[in-house]
Amino acid sequence: MLIHTVQIRVRYAETDQMGYVYYGNYATYYEVARAESLRSLGFSYKLLEEQGVFMPVTENKSKYIRPARYDDLLTIKVSIKEMPVKRITFEYEIYNERQKLINLGETILAFVKTVNGRACDAPDSITNLLKPFFNG
Amino acid sequence: MLIHTVQIRVRYAETDQMGYVYYGNYATYYEVARAESLRSLGFSYKLLEEQGVFMPVTENKSKYIRPARYDDLLTIKVSIKEMPVKRITFEYEIYNERQKLINLGETILAFVKTVNGRACDAPDSITNLLKPFFNG
Amino acid sequence: MLIHTVQIRVRYAETDQMGYVYYGNYATYYEVARAESLRSLGFSYKLLEEQGVFMPVTENKSKYIRPARYDDLLTIKVSIKEMPVKRITFEYEIYNERQKLINLGETILAFVKTVNGRACDAPDSITNLLKPFFNG
Amino acid sequence: MLIHTVQIRVRYAETDQMGYVYYGNYATYYEVARAESLRSLGFSYKLLEEQGVFMPVTENKSKYIRPARYDDLLTIKVSIKEMPVKRITFEYEIYNERQKLINLGETILAFVKTVNGRACDAPDSITNLLKPFFNG
Repeated sequence: MLIHTVQIRVRYAETDQMGYVYYGNYATYYEVARAESLRSLGFSYKLLEEQGVFMPVTENKSKYIRPARYDDLLTIKVSIKEMPVKRITFEYEIYNERQKLINLGETILAFVKTVNGRACDAPDSITNLLKPFFNG
Repeated sequence: MLIHTVQIRVRYAETDQMGYVYYGNYATYYEVARAESLRSLGFSYKLLEEQGVFMPVTENKSKYIRPARYDDLLTIKVSIKEMPVKRITFEYEIYNERQKLINLGETILAFVKTVNGRACDAPDSITNLLKPFFNG
Repeated sequence: MLIHTVQIRVRYAETDQMGYVYYGNYATYYEVARAESLRSLGFSYKLLEEQGVFMPVTENKSKYIRPARYDDLLTIKVSIKEMPVKRITFEYEIYNERQKLINLGETILAFVKTVNGRACDAPDSITNLLKPFFNG
Repeated sequence: MLIHTVQIRVRYAETDQMGYVYYGNYATYYEVARAESLRSLGFSYKLLEEQGVFMPVTENKSKYIRPARYDDLLTIKVSIKEMPVKRITFEYEIYNERQKLINLGETILAFVKTVNGRACDAPDSITNLLKPFFNG
């Protein structure tokens, strides 16, 4: 299992008139958490796209437990619990500054070749880096 | 059951460098679909907030089946399948211009009193309008 | 001069905790107004990109006179006051439902060839449609 | 004069199908730069709102010189060049990782009392912190 922790400060743009972070903006927080978890392995999602593989989201789920508010410094614990083959699943727990759990999320992404738009397996560039975290 | 249909044209701002609508932006499409489905009953979410009840999202799920692209005119079929008590659930099917299903979604919202932040039942102003759609 | 009028309803996602439309979201309203003004001529920005020309923004200005609020049905009057050559300038006036002016804006866009990223003149597909509005 | 430097990494959500940061998203980068420049003084915009003053934007201008792209680590140099009275003006220069200037911006904000929605002078809590930067 790979676990990585990221911090994000809530922007004014992300709040809504309820004074909460708009529910759709958590998807962006998840995206940042995914990118940073891969960066922590020395992997770059940007480079992956340049190498001809992109990762469209196929599924996303969120539970909203407590609101996040403007200027909150959120802590996102992101984890990959299974070695990716056709798809990769990221899970998230988001905590506010008082260490209260505010959000749970899960995103499933596919691997697709840019050249033909076809689904493919997780490229070696990513599985090689993940293997050490899933040793039997 | 209440079913309502809404059309939304994809904005450039909503696309990402993959050339797809960014996955987090579907939450906004769902929001528009919810608001318009209630407006079709003669109900205004804006007015509800002004009357002291707001509806924070507690859960959201999406399946991304096909991409939506810039300038696509999407059709969203939104439905309420159960009379709301403590919570209300909206389900969505999104179709592109070739009538292909591109997205499935579900959002659960609570009812909360502005004055004390406490959960409450669905207000009469909404249940009275919904009753005709759920007659035994 | 070309003048076109577009209506946009404010989404919850576009508000911030001040209860106003977030100032950055007007750029999206301008984008919709531009696309719809061109569509009114029978022109499609989407098609232009497919034909190998895109239009990056080089300058944008806004004056915020009154707030826009959730669910407001805004009217955007967009105008092109000069025949485009290297660049095209769009100007906007946004009114709320009480016909009060709430926002003034101006955007300048360039024409760039997708193939080499080089600036080019406004393509004939757009200037031919605009000519009738600028006859001496 | 107060000058402060902030770094922001471009999110996927912020790109558009041109592969650039969408022009409207710079407003959010400016917002972060403003908040962080004030935080560097020990000032919190969040606290200001809690104390009953909010700062709506009255004017915003941007020049887009080069595109910003996904995952770029941008450097924003934000400056306040004049002591605020009725309004405060922030200016921005944004550089990419190769130290190339990509964007110039300017935002003017007013001070407004939450209680009555009336314009007011810059509160002492902010002018006292700024004074040392505008001596003699």
